[in-house]
Amino acid sequence: MTLKMDAAALNDFLAREFEQVASDFTVESASEDLLVMRLKVSDAHLRPGGTVSGPSMFGLVDLAIYCAILSKIGPVGLSVTTNASIDFMRKPESGRDLLARCRLLKLGRVLAVGDALIYSDGQDAPVARSSMTYSIPPKR
Amino acid sequence: MTLKMDAAALNDFLAREFEQVASDFTVESASEDLLVMRLKVSDAHLRPGGTVSGPSMFGLVDLAIYCAILSKIGPVGLSVTTNASIDFMRKPESGRDLLARCRLLKLGRVLAVGDALIYSDGQDAPVARSSMTYSIPPKR
Amino acid sequence: MTLKMDAAALNDFLAREFEQVASDFTVESASEDLLVMRLKVSDAHLRPGGTVSGPSMFGLVDLAIYCAILSKIGPVGLSVTTNASIDFMRKPESGRDLLARCRLLKLGRVLAVGDALIYSDGQDAPVARSSMTYSIPPKR
Amino acid sequence: MTLKMDAAALNDFLAREFEQVASDFTVESASEDLLVMRLKVSDAHLRPGGTVSGPSMFGLVDLAIYCAILSKIGPVGLSVTTNASIDFMRKPESGRDLLARCRLLKLGRVLAVGDALIYSDGQDAPVARSSMTYSIPPKR
Repeated sequence: MTLKMDAAALNDFLAREFEQVASDFTVESASEDLLVMRLKVSDAHLRPGGTVSGPSMFGLVDLAIYCAILSKIGPVGLSVTTNASIDFMRKPESGRDLLARCRLLKLGRVLAVGDALIYSDGQDAPVARSSMTYSIPPKR
Repeated sequence: MTLKMDAAALNDFLAREFEQVASDFTVESASEDLLVMRLKVSDAHLRPGGTVSGPSMFGLVDLAIYCAILSKIGPVGLSVTTNASIDFMRKPESGRDLLARCRLLKLGRVLAVGDALIYSDGQDAPVARSSMTYSIPPKR
Repeated sequence: MTLKMDAAALNDFLAREFEQVASDFTVESASEDLLVMRLKVSDAHLRPGGTVSGPSMFGLVDLAIYCAILSKIGPVGLSVTTNASIDFMRKPESGRDLLARCRLLKLGRVLAVGDALIYSDGQDAPVARSSMTYSIPPKR
Repeated sequence: MTLKMDAAALNDFLAREFEQVASDFTVESASEDLLVMRLKVSDAHLRPGGTVSGPSMFGLVDLAIYCAILSKIGPVGLSVTTNASIDFMRKPESGRDLLARCRLLKLGRVLAVGDALIYSDGQDAPVARSSMTYSIPPKR
Protein backbone atom coordinates (compact mmCIF):
# COMPACT_ATOMS: atom_id res chain seq x y z
CA MET A 1 0.00 0.00 0.00
CA THR A 2 1.45 3.34 -1.01
CA LEU A 3 0.53 6.50 0.86
CA LYS A 4 -2.20 8.64 -0.67
CA MET A 5 -0.86 11.75 1.11
CA ASP A 6 2.73 12.39 2.19
CA ALA A 7 3.90 14.85 4.86
CA ALA A 8 3.79 17.84 2.48
CA ALA A 9 0.28 17.00 1.27
CA LEU A 10 -0.91 16.58 4.86
CA ASN A 11 0.54 19.94 5.92
CA ASP A 12 -1.15 21.61 2.94
CA PHE A 13 -4.42 19.96 3.94
CA LEU A 14 -4.12 21.17 7.55
CA ALA A 15 -3.36 24.73 6.43
CA ARG A 16 -6.50 24.70 4.26
CA GLU A 17 -8.99 22.83 6.42
CA PHE A 18 -7.82 23.41 10.00
CA GLU A 19 -6.55 26.95 9.80
CA GLN A 20 -7.43 27.65 13.46
CA VAL A 21 -4.88 25.12 14.68
CA ALA A 22 -2.60 24.49 11.70
CA SER A 23 0.04 26.97 12.82
CA ASP A 24 0.56 24.94 16.00
CA PHE A 25 1.16 21.59 14.30
CA THR A 26 3.46 20.16 11.62
CA VAL A 27 3.60 16.69 10.15
CA GLU A 28 7.33 15.95 10.39
CA SER A 29 7.22 12.65 8.50
CA ALA A 30 4.72 10.10 7.26
CA SER A 31 5.50 6.57 6.19
CA GLU A 32 3.67 3.26 5.97
CA ASP A 33 4.36 2.48 9.64
CA LEU A 34 4.90 5.77 11.44
CA LEU A 35 3.66 9.33 11.39
CA VAL A 36 5.45 11.97 13.45
CA MET A 37 3.69 15.22 14.33
CA ARG A 38 5.15 18.22 16.13
CA LEU A 39 3.32 20.52 18.51
CA LYS A 40 5.08 23.87 18.46
CA VAL A 41 4.64 24.65 22.13
CA SER A 42 3.78 28.25 23.01
CA ASP A 43 2.32 29.99 26.04
CA ALA A 44 -1.20 29.08 24.90
CA HIS A 45 -0.45 25.40 25.58
CA LEU A 46 0.89 25.82 29.10
CA ARG A 47 -0.67 25.20 32.48
CA PRO A 48 0.36 26.78 35.77
CA GLY A 49 3.89 25.54 36.50
CA GLY A 50 4.92 25.74 32.85
CA THR A 51 3.88 22.25 31.82
CA VAL A 52 2.01 21.54 28.60
CA SER A 53 -1.71 21.11 29.27
CA GLY A 54 -3.53 17.81 28.95
CA PRO A 55 -5.94 19.15 26.31
CA SER A 56 -2.95 20.25 24.19
CA MET A 57 -1.49 16.74 24.32
CA PHE A 58 -4.90 15.27 23.58
CA GLY A 59 -5.19 17.55 20.56
CA LEU A 60 -1.74 16.56 19.33
CA VAL A 61 -2.52 12.83 19.33
CA ASP A 62 -5.99 13.38 17.89
CA LEU A 63 -4.64 15.30 14.92
CA ALA A 64 -1.66 12.95 14.44
CA ILE A 65 -3.75 9.78 14.17
CA TYR A 66 -6.29 11.62 12.02
CA CYS A 67 -3.45 12.50 9.63
CA ALA A 68 -2.21 8.89 9.70
CA ILE A 69 -5.67 7.83 8.50
CA LEU A 70 -5.71 10.51 5.78
CA SER A 71 -2.26 9.44 4.62
CA LYS A 72 -3.80 6.09 3.72
CA ILE A 73 -7.31 6.93 2.52
CA GLY A 74 -6.78 10.45 1.14
CA PRO A 75 -8.62 13.70 1.96
CA VAL A 76 -12.13 12.30 1.62
CA GLY A 77 -15.10 12.46 3.98
CA LEU A 78 -14.68 13.29 7.64
CA SER A 79 -13.47 10.73 10.15
CA VAL A 80 -14.73 11.38 13.67
CA THR A 81 -13.01 10.44 16.94
CA THR A 82 -15.28 8.11 18.92
CA ASN A 83 -12.99 6.99 21.75
CA ALA A 84 -9.72 8.12 23.29
CA SER A 85 -7.63 6.92 26.17
CA ILE A 86 -4.52 8.68 27.36
CA ASP A 87 -1.95 8.06 30.09
CA PHE A 88 0.06 11.01 31.31
CA MET A 89 3.32 9.48 32.53
CA ARG A 90 5.93 12.20 32.95
CA LYS A 91 6.08 15.97 33.10
CA PRO A 92 7.07 17.42 29.71
CA GLU A 93 10.33 19.35 29.67
CA SER A 94 9.58 23.05 29.73
CA GLY A 95 10.63 25.03 26.68
CA ARG A 96 10.60 22.04 24.31
CA ASP A 97 8.20 21.10 21.53
CA LEU A 98 6.29 17.84 21.79
CA LEU A 99 6.49 15.08 19.20
CA ALA A 100 3.82 12.41 18.74
CA ARG A 101 5.01 9.20 17.09
CA CYS A 102 1.94 7.34 15.98
CA ARG A 103 1.01 4.16 14.17
CA LEU A 104 -2.24 2.99 12.64
CA LEU A 105 -3.10 -0.42 14.10
CA LYS A 106 -6.33 -0.98 12.23
CA LEU A 107 -7.94 0.63 9.21
CA GLY A 108 -11.26 -1.09 8.75
CA ARG A 109 -14.37 -0.35 6.77
CA VAL A 110 -16.04 1.59 9.59
CA LEU A 111 -13.45 1.91 12.38
CA ALA A 112 -9.78 2.85 12.54
CA VAL A 113 -7.55 2.51 15.62
CA GLY A 114 -4.20 4.16 16.20
CA ASP A 115 -1.87 4.75 19.10
CA ALA A 116 0.91 7.18 19.87
CA LEU A 117 3.71 7.98 22.24
CA ILE A 118 4.41 11.65 22.99
CA TYR A 119 7.95 12.84 23.66
CA SER A 120 9.52 16.11 24.66
CA ASP A 121 11.73 16.91 21.67
CA GLY A 122 15.17 15.41 22.27
CA GLN A 123 14.18 13.22 25.22
CA ASP A 124 14.11 9.40 25.39
CA ALA A 125 11.33 8.68 27.87
CA PRO A 126 7.77 9.24 26.64
CA VAL A 127 5.66 11.82 28.49
CA ALA A 128 2.34 10.28 27.46
CA ARG A 129 0.73 7.33 25.72
CA SER A 130 -2.57 7.45 23.90
CA SER A 131 -4.85 5.38 21.70
CA MET A 132 -7.88 6.58 19.76
CA THR A 133 -10.66 5.12 17.64
CA TYR A 134 -12.19 6.88 14.65
CA SER A 135 -15.44 6.26 12.85
CA ILE A 136 -14.84 6.38 9.11
CA PRO A 137 -17.57 7.82 6.91
CA PRO A 138 -19.43 5.18 4.83
CA LYS A 139 -18.34 6.18 1.34
CA ARG A 140 -14.71 6.77 0.48
CA MET B 1 -18.24 14.99 54.85
CA THR B 2 -18.93 18.66 54.23
CA LEU B 3 -17.45 20.41 51.21
CA LYS B 4 -14.24 22.33 51.79
CA MET B 5 -14.94 24.55 48.76
CA ASP B 6 -18.34 25.45 47.32
CA ALA B 7 -19.07 26.70 43.79
CA ALA B 8 -18.17 30.31 44.63
CA ALA B 9 -14.87 29.31 46.25
CA LEU B 10 -14.00 27.12 43.28
CA ASN B 11 -14.72 29.90 40.80
CA ASP B 12 -12.53 32.27 42.82
CA PHE B 13 -9.78 29.68 42.81
CA LEU B 14 -9.99 29.23 39.03
CA ALA B 15 -9.88 32.98 38.45
CA ARG B 16 -6.73 33.21 40.57
CA GLU B 17 -4.81 30.09 39.57
CA PHE B 18 -6.02 29.28 36.04
CA GLU B 19 -6.46 32.74 34.61
CA GLN B 20 -5.64 31.55 31.06
CA VAL B 21 -8.75 29.39 30.94
CA ALA B 22 -10.95 30.63 33.78
CA SER B 23 -13.01 32.92 31.55
CA ASP B 24 -14.15 29.86 29.57
CA PHE B 25 -15.39 27.84 32.53
CA THR B 26 -17.81 28.28 35.43
CA VAL B 27 -18.65 25.94 38.27
CA GLU B 28 -22.45 26.01 38.18
CA SER B 29 -22.98 23.94 41.31
CA ALA B 30 -21.06 21.70 43.67
CA SER B 31 -22.53 19.25 46.13
CA GLU B 32 -21.49 16.06 47.87
CA ASP B 33 -22.52 13.93 44.89
CA LEU B 34 -22.42 16.13 41.81
CA LEU B 35 -20.42 18.98 40.36
CA VAL B 36 -21.67 20.77 37.27
CA MET B 37 -19.28 22.82 35.14
CA ARG B 38 -20.13 24.99 32.15
CA LEU B 39 -17.95 25.54 29.10
CA LYS B 40 -18.91 28.88 27.59
CA VAL B 41 -18.51 27.84 23.97
CA SER B 42 -16.91 30.41 21.67
CA ASP B 43 -15.27 30.28 18.25
CA ALA B 44 -11.99 29.21 19.85
CA HIS B 45 -13.56 25.87 20.82
CA LEU B 46 -14.96 24.98 17.40
CA ARG B 47 -13.75 22.63 14.72
CA PRO B 48 -14.57 22.83 11.01
CA GLY B 49 -18.31 22.19 10.70
CA GLY B 50 -19.11 24.19 13.82
CA THR B 51 -18.81 21.37 16.34
CA VAL B 52 -16.97 21.74 19.66
CA SER B 53 -13.48 20.24 19.42
CA GLY B 54 -12.44 17.09 21.25
CA PRO B 55 -9.65 18.86 23.16
CA SER B 56 -12.19 21.42 24.45
CA MET B 57 -14.42 18.63 25.78
CA PHE B 58 -11.40 16.91 27.26
CA GLY B 59 -10.42 20.16 29.00
CA LEU B 60 -13.95 20.61 30.36
CA VAL B 61 -14.03 17.19 32.02
CA ASP B 62 -10.45 17.50 33.25
CA LEU B 63 -11.18 20.77 35.01
CA ALA B 64 -14.57 19.62 36.33
CA ILE B 65 -13.24 16.50 38.04
CA TYR B 66 -10.24 18.47 39.30
CA CYS B 67 -12.69 20.91 40.93
CA ALA B 68 -14.71 18.02 42.37
CA ILE B 69 -11.51 16.85 44.09
CA LEU B 70 -10.73 20.37 45.35
CA SER B 71 -14.28 20.69 46.70
CA LYS B 72 -13.48 17.83 49.05
CA ILE B 73 -9.79 18.30 49.94
CA GLY B 74 -9.46 22.06 49.58
CA PRO B 75 -6.98 24.13 47.55
CA VAL B 76 -3.86 22.27 48.65
CA GLY B 77 -1.10 20.70 46.61
CA LEU B 78 -1.46 19.93 42.95
CA SER B 79 -3.35 16.88 41.75
CA VAL B 80 -2.17 15.63 38.38
CA THR B 81 -4.23 13.77 35.76
CA THR B 82 -2.66 10.37 35.12
CA ASN B 83 -5.28 8.67 32.95
CA ALA B 84 -8.27 9.72 30.91
CA SER B 85 -10.74 7.90 28.73
CA ILE B 86 -13.43 9.61 26.74
CA ASP B 87 -16.22 8.46 24.41
CA PHE B 88 -17.59 10.94 21.93
CA MET B 89 -21.16 9.81 21.34
CA ARG B 90 -23.12 12.57 19.63
CA LYS B 91 -22.41 15.83 17.83
CA PRO B 92 -22.88 18.80 20.20
CA GLU B 93 -25.63 21.23 19.21
CA SER B 94 -24.08 24.27 17.58
CA GLY B 95 -24.49 27.56 19.43
CA ARG B 96 -25.00 25.98 22.83
CA ASP B 97 -22.73 25.82 25.87
CA LEU B 98 -21.61 22.45 27.17
CA LEU B 99 -22.28 21.21 30.69
CA ALA B 100 -20.27 18.50 32.40
CA ARG B 101 -22.06 16.68 35.22
CA CYS B 102 -19.42 14.85 37.19
CA ARG B 103 -19.14 12.68 40.27
CA LEU B 104 -16.15 11.59 42.32
CA LEU B 105 -16.16 7.79 42.54
CA LYS B 106 -13.04 7.39 44.63
CA LEU B 107 -10.96 9.75 46.72
CA GLY B 108 -8.08 7.70 48.06
CA ARG B 109 -4.78 8.50 49.67
CA VAL B 110 -2.87 8.59 46.37
CA LEU B 111 -5.47 8.24 43.60
CA ALA B 112 -8.84 9.81 42.85
CA VAL B 113 -11.25 8.67 40.13
CA GLY B 114 -14.18 10.61 38.71
CA ASP B 115 -16.46 10.39 35.73
CA ALA B 116 -18.66 12.79 33.83
CA LEU B 117 -21.33 13.08 31.20
CA ILE B 118 -21.23 16.10 28.89
CA TYR B 119 -24.45 17.64 27.58
CA SER B 120 -25.28 20.42 25.17
CA ASP B 121 -27.12 22.91 27.40
CA GLY B 122 -30.83 22.10 27.34
CA GLN B 123 -30.51 18.68 25.69
CA ASP B 124 -31.29 15.28 27.22
CA ALA B 125 -28.88 12.94 25.44
CA PRO B 126 -25.22 13.18 26.49
CA VAL B 127 -22.69 14.13 23.80
CA ALA B 128 -19.75 12.50 25.59
CA ARG B 129 -18.74 10.33 28.52
CA SER B 130 -15.42 10.48 30.28
CA SER B 131 -13.56 9.12 33.27
CA MET B 132 -10.24 10.33 34.65
CA THR B 133 -7.74 9.37 37.33
CA TYR B 134 -5.70 11.87 39.32
CA SER B 135 -2.59 11.38 41.38
CA ILE B 136 -2.94 13.26 44.66
CA PRO B 137 0.16 14.84 46.17
CA PRO B 138 1.46 13.02 49.27
CA LYS B 139 0.82 15.66 51.92
CA ARG B 140 -2.54 17.35 52.29
CA MET C 1 -39.36 2.72 23.91
CA THR C 2 -40.47 -0.53 25.52
CA LEU C 3 -37.96 -3.28 26.22
CA LYS C 4 -37.77 -6.08 23.64
CA MET C 5 -36.38 -8.46 26.28
CA ASP C 6 -36.97 -8.34 30.03
CA ALA C 7 -34.83 -9.96 32.75
CA ALA C 8 -36.45 -13.38 32.34
CA ALA C 9 -36.03 -13.35 28.55
CA LEU C 10 -32.40 -12.29 28.92
CA ASN C 11 -31.65 -15.08 31.39
CA ASP C 12 -33.27 -17.61 29.03
CA PHE C 13 -31.13 -16.26 26.21
CA LEU C 14 -27.93 -16.56 28.27
CA ALA C 15 -28.76 -20.14 29.27
CA ARG C 16 -29.24 -21.05 25.61
CA GLU C 17 -26.45 -19.12 23.90
CA PHE C 18 -23.77 -18.70 26.58
CA GLU C 19 -24.03 -21.99 28.42
CA GLN C 20 -20.32 -21.95 29.32
CA VAL C 21 -20.76 -18.87 31.49
CA ALA C 22 -24.52 -18.61 32.10
CA SER C 23 -24.38 -20.39 35.46
CA ASP C 24 -22.10 -17.62 36.78
CA PHE C 25 -24.34 -14.70 35.84
CA THR C 26 -27.94 -13.61 36.41
CA VAL C 27 -29.80 -10.56 35.14
CA GLU C 28 -31.38 -9.25 38.33
CA SER C 29 -33.45 -6.54 36.71
CA ALA C 30 -33.75 -4.71 33.41
CA SER C 31 -35.54 -1.43 32.82
CA GLU C 32 -35.35 1.43 30.38
CA ASP C 33 -32.55 3.12 32.33
CA LEU C 34 -30.75 0.44 34.32
CA LEU C 35 -29.74 -3.19 34.02
CA VAL C 36 -28.38 -5.00 37.06
CA MET C 37 -26.35 -8.19 36.62
CA ARG C 38 -25.03 -10.47 39.36
CA LEU C 39 -21.78 -12.42 39.27
CA LYS C 40 -22.15 -15.41 41.55
CA VAL C 41 -18.61 -15.39 42.88
CA SER C 42 -16.95 -18.79 43.31
CA ASP C 43 -13.37 -19.99 43.70
CA ALA C 44 -12.91 -19.88 39.93
CA HIS C 45 -13.16 -16.06 40.02
CA LEU C 46 -10.62 -15.49 42.77
CA ARG C 47 -7.01 -14.35 42.68
CA PRO C 48 -4.37 -15.01 45.33
CA GLY C 49 -5.50 -13.15 48.44
CA GLY C 50 -9.15 -14.00 47.89
CA THR C 51 -10.08 -11.02 45.74
CA VAL C 52 -12.17 -11.32 42.59
CA SER C 53 -9.93 -11.28 39.50
CA GLY C 54 -9.83 -8.42 37.03
CA PRO C 55 -10.87 -10.64 34.10
CA SER C 56 -13.96 -11.75 36.08
CA MET C 57 -14.99 -8.14 36.64
CA PHE C 58 -14.29 -7.36 33.00
CA GLY C 59 -16.50 -10.29 31.98
CA LEU C 60 -19.29 -9.12 34.26
CA VAL C 61 -19.45 -5.64 32.74
CA ASP C 62 -19.04 -6.98 29.20
CA LEU C 63 -22.02 -9.30 29.57
CA ALA C 64 -24.13 -6.75 31.45
CA ILE C 65 -23.84 -4.05 28.79
CA TYR C 66 -24.32 -6.66 26.07
CA CYS C 67 -27.60 -7.64 27.75
CA ALA C 68 -28.61 -3.98 28.05
CA ILE C 69 -28.23 -3.72 24.27
CA LEU C 70 -30.22 -6.93 23.71
CA SER C 71 -32.97 -5.66 26.00
CA LYS C 72 -33.52 -2.84 23.51
CA ILE C 73 -32.86 -4.41 20.12
CA GLY C 74 -33.81 -8.05 20.79
CA PRO C 75 -31.80 -11.25 20.27
CA VAL C 76 -30.70 -10.48 16.74
CA GLY C 77 -27.24 -10.53 15.19
CA LEU C 78 -24.08 -10.44 17.24
CA SER C 79 -22.79 -7.23 18.76
CA VAL C 80 -19.04 -7.24 19.30
CA THR C 81 -17.08 -5.35 21.97
CA THR C 82 -14.65 -2.96 20.30
CA ASN C 83 -13.35 -0.93 23.24
CA ALA C 84 -13.34 -1.22 26.99
CA SER C 85 -11.92 0.89 29.79
CA ILE C 86 -12.06 -0.10 33.40
CA ASP C 87 -10.92 1.47 36.67
CA PHE C 88 -10.35 -0.81 39.63
CA MET C 89 -10.99 1.39 42.65
CA ARG C 90 -11.43 -0.77 45.74
CA LYS C 91 -10.82 -4.36 46.77
CA PRO C 92 -14.07 -6.38 46.56
CA GLU C 93 -15.32 -7.79 49.86
CA SER C 94 -14.40 -11.46 50.05
CA GLY C 95 -17.31 -13.90 50.12
CA ARG C 96 -19.77 -11.56 48.45
CA ASP C 97 -21.26 -11.61 44.95
CA LEU C 98 -20.62 -8.68 42.64
CA LEU C 99 -23.36 -6.57 41.10
CA ALA C 100 -22.94 -4.47 37.96
CA ARG C 101 -25.36 -1.58 37.59
CA CYS C 102 -25.19 -0.46 33.99
CA ARG C 103 -26.82 2.05 31.69
CA LEU C 104 -26.82 2.37 27.93
CA LEU C 105 -25.62 5.86 27.01
CA LYS C 106 -25.88 5.52 23.25
CA LEU C 107 -27.56 3.07 20.95
CA GLY C 108 -26.70 4.17 17.45
CA ARG C 109 -26.90 2.56 14.05
CA VAL C 110 -23.40 1.09 14.21
CA LEU C 111 -22.08 1.79 17.73
CA ALA C 112 -23.47 1.43 21.24
CA VAL C 113 -21.85 2.78 24.41
CA GLY C 114 -22.63 1.77 27.97
CA ASP C 115 -21.07 2.19 31.37
CA ALA C 116 -21.32 0.41 34.69
CA LEU C 117 -20.41 0.57 38.33
CA ILE C 118 -19.55 -2.68 40.09
CA TYR C 119 -20.41 -3.18 43.76
CA SER C 120 -19.80 -5.91 46.29
CA ASP C 121 -23.33 -7.04 47.15
CA GLY C 122 -24.58 -4.98 50.09
CA GLN C 123 -21.84 -2.32 49.97
CA ASP C 124 -22.19 1.36 49.13
CA ALA C 125 -18.83 2.22 47.55
CA PRO C 126 -18.22 0.91 44.02
CA VAL C 127 -15.26 -1.43 43.53
CA ALA C 128 -14.87 -0.66 39.83
CA ARG C 129 -16.09 1.58 37.02
CA SER C 130 -16.14 0.58 33.39
CA SER C 131 -17.33 1.76 29.99
CA MET C 132 -17.48 -0.24 26.79
CA THR C 133 -18.28 0.27 23.12
CA TYR C 134 -19.96 -2.31 20.90
CA SER C 135 -20.15 -2.59 17.17
CA ILE C 136 -23.70 -3.47 16.15
CA PRO C 137 -24.20 -5.73 13.15
CA PRO C 138 -25.53 -3.90 10.04
CA LYS C 139 -28.98 -5.49 9.74
CA ARG C 140 -31.36 -5.70 12.66
CA MET D 1 19.31 -1.93 34.22
CA THR D 2 19.56 -5.70 34.28
CA LEU D 3 16.47 -7.83 34.75
CA LYS D 4 15.78 -9.10 38.26
CA MET D 5 13.77 -12.02 36.87
CA ASP D 6 14.17 -13.68 33.47
CA ALA D 7 11.57 -15.79 31.64
CA ALA D 8 12.40 -18.96 33.59
CA ALA D 9 12.20 -17.18 36.94
CA LEU D 10 8.88 -15.60 35.97
CA ASN D 11 7.39 -18.95 34.93
CA ASP D 12 8.53 -20.49 38.23
CA PHE D 13 6.90 -17.59 40.07
CA LEU D 14 3.60 -18.03 38.19
CA ALA D 15 3.56 -21.78 38.89
CA ARG D 16 4.03 -21.07 42.61
CA GLU D 17 1.83 -18.01 43.15
CA PHE D 18 -0.83 -18.22 40.43
CA GLU D 19 -1.40 -21.95 40.22
CA GLN D 20 -5.05 -21.48 39.20
CA VAL D 21 -4.07 -19.84 35.92
CA ALA D 22 -0.38 -20.73 35.45
CA SER D 23 -1.08 -23.71 33.22
CA ASP D 24 -2.75 -21.37 30.70
CA PHE D 25 0.14 -18.91 30.39
CA THR D 26 3.86 -19.01 29.59
CA VAL D 27 6.40 -16.22 29.51
CA GLU D 28 8.08 -16.85 26.15
CA SER D 29 10.79 -14.23 26.53
CA ALA D 30 11.67 -11.27 28.70
CA SER D 31 14.16 -8.56 27.89
CA GLU D 32 14.77 -4.96 28.81
CA ASP D 33 12.33 -3.71 26.17
CA LEU D 34 9.87 -6.51 25.46
CA LEU D 35 8.09 -9.31 27.26
CA VAL D 36 6.19 -11.91 25.26
CA MET D 37 3.53 -14.03 26.94
CA ARG D 38 1.59 -16.92 25.40
CA LEU D 39 -2.01 -17.85 26.17
CA LYS D 40 -2.44 -21.54 25.45
CA VAL D 41 -5.95 -21.32 24.05
CA SER D 42 -8.35 -24.09 25.07
CA ASP D 43 -12.12 -24.50 25.05
CA ALA D 44 -12.35 -22.65 28.36
CA HIS D 45 -11.26 -19.43 26.62
CA LEU D 46 -13.73 -19.55 23.76
CA ARG D 47 -17.00 -17.70 23.17
CA PRO D 48 -19.87 -18.83 20.94
CA GLY D 49 -18.51 -18.82 17.38
CA GLY D 50 -15.13 -20.16 18.45
CA THR D 51 -13.43 -16.83 19.12
CA VAL D 52 -11.29 -16.18 22.20
CA SER D 53 -13.30 -14.30 24.82
CA GLY D 54 -12.62 -10.71 25.80
CA PRO D 55 -11.96 -11.59 29.45
CA SER D 56 -9.32 -14.11 28.33
CA MET D 57 -7.51 -11.44 26.32
CA PHE D 58 -7.84 -9.03 29.20
CA GLY D 59 -6.30 -11.62 31.51
CA LEU D 60 -3.43 -12.24 29.10
CA VAL D 61 -2.41 -8.58 28.95
CA ASP D 62 -2.93 -8.10 32.69
CA LEU D 63 -0.58 -10.96 33.53
CA ALA D 64 1.95 -10.02 30.84
CA ILE D 65 2.42 -6.44 32.02
CA TYR D 66 2.44 -7.63 35.63
CA CYS D 67 5.32 -9.95 34.73
CA ALA D 68 7.12 -7.14 32.91
CA ILE D 69 7.00 -5.17 36.17
CA LEU D 70 8.24 -8.16 38.18
CA SER D 71 11.08 -8.68 35.71
CA LYS D 72 12.40 -5.26 36.75
CA ILE D 73 11.57 -5.00 40.45
CA GLY D 74 11.62 -8.67 41.47
CA PRO D 75 9.00 -10.79 43.25
CA VAL D 76 8.27 -8.32 46.01
CA GLY D 77 4.98 -6.91 47.23
CA LEU D 78 1.83 -7.05 45.19
CA SER D 79 1.22 -4.61 42.36
CA VAL D 80 -2.46 -4.00 41.69
CA THR D 81 -4.08 -3.08 38.37
CA THR D 82 -5.82 0.28 38.70
CA ASN D 83 -6.79 1.06 35.10
CA ALA D 84 -7.06 -0.83 31.85
CA SER D 85 -8.11 0.10 28.36
CA ILE D 86 -8.38 -2.38 25.54
CA ASP D 87 -9.32 -2.18 21.86
CA PHE D 88 -10.53 -5.34 20.17
CA MET D 89 -9.58 -4.87 16.53
CA ARG D 90 -9.80 -8.22 14.72
CA LYS D 91 -11.25 -11.66 15.32
CA PRO D 92 -8.54 -14.05 16.57
CA GLU D 93 -7.80 -17.02 14.28
CA SER D 94 -9.52 -20.07 15.67
CA GLY D 95 -7.26 -22.89 16.82
CA ARG D 96 -4.24 -20.66 17.45
CA ASP D 97 -2.64 -19.50 20.69
CA LEU D 98 -2.49 -15.81 21.44
CA LEU D 99 0.75 -13.91 22.06
CA ALA D 100 0.96 -10.62 23.94
CA ARG D 101 3.99 -8.48 23.13
CA CYS D 102 4.28 -5.90 25.87
CA ARG D 103 6.52 -3.06 26.92
CA LEU D 104 6.82 -1.14 30.14
CA LEU D 105 6.49 2.56 29.38
CA LYS D 106 6.85 3.85 32.92
CA LEU D 107 8.07 2.34 36.13
CA GLY D 108 7.65 5.02 38.77
CA ARG D 109 7.67 5.06 42.53
CA VAL D 110 3.91 4.50 42.85
CA LEU D 111 2.61 3.85 39.32
CA ALA D 112 3.70 1.70 36.39
CA VAL D 113 2.25 1.85 32.87
CA GLY D 114 2.61 -0.74 30.15
CA ASP D 115 1.00 -1.52 26.84
CA ALA D 116 0.67 -4.58 24.65
CA LEU D 117 -0.37 -5.82 21.27
CA ILE D 118 -2.03 -9.24 21.07
CA TYR D 119 -1.49 -11.47 18.03
CA SER D 120 -2.84 -14.83 16.91
CA ASP D 121 0.31 -16.96 16.82
CA GLY D 122 1.84 -16.73 13.36
CA GLN D 123 -0.23 -13.76 12.15
CA ASP D 124 0.99 -10.25 11.34
CA ALA D 125 -2.00 -8.05 12.19
CA PRO D 126 -2.72 -7.52 15.89
CA VAL D 127 -6.10 -8.68 17.20
CA ALA D 128 -6.11 -6.31 20.16
CA ARG D 129 -4.29 -3.40 21.79
CA SER D 130 -4.26 -2.69 25.47
CA SER D 131 -2.67 -0.45 28.07
CA MET D 132 -2.80 -0.83 31.82
CA THR D 133 -1.72 1.04 34.93
CA TYR D 134 -0.54 -0.63 38.14
CA SER D 135 -0.23 0.72 41.62
CA ILE D 136 3.08 -0.39 43.11
CA PRO D 137 3.21 -1.17 46.82
CA PRO D 138 5.07 1.47 48.88
CA LYS D 139 8.09 -0.54 50.04
CA ARG D 140 10.20 -2.53 47.61
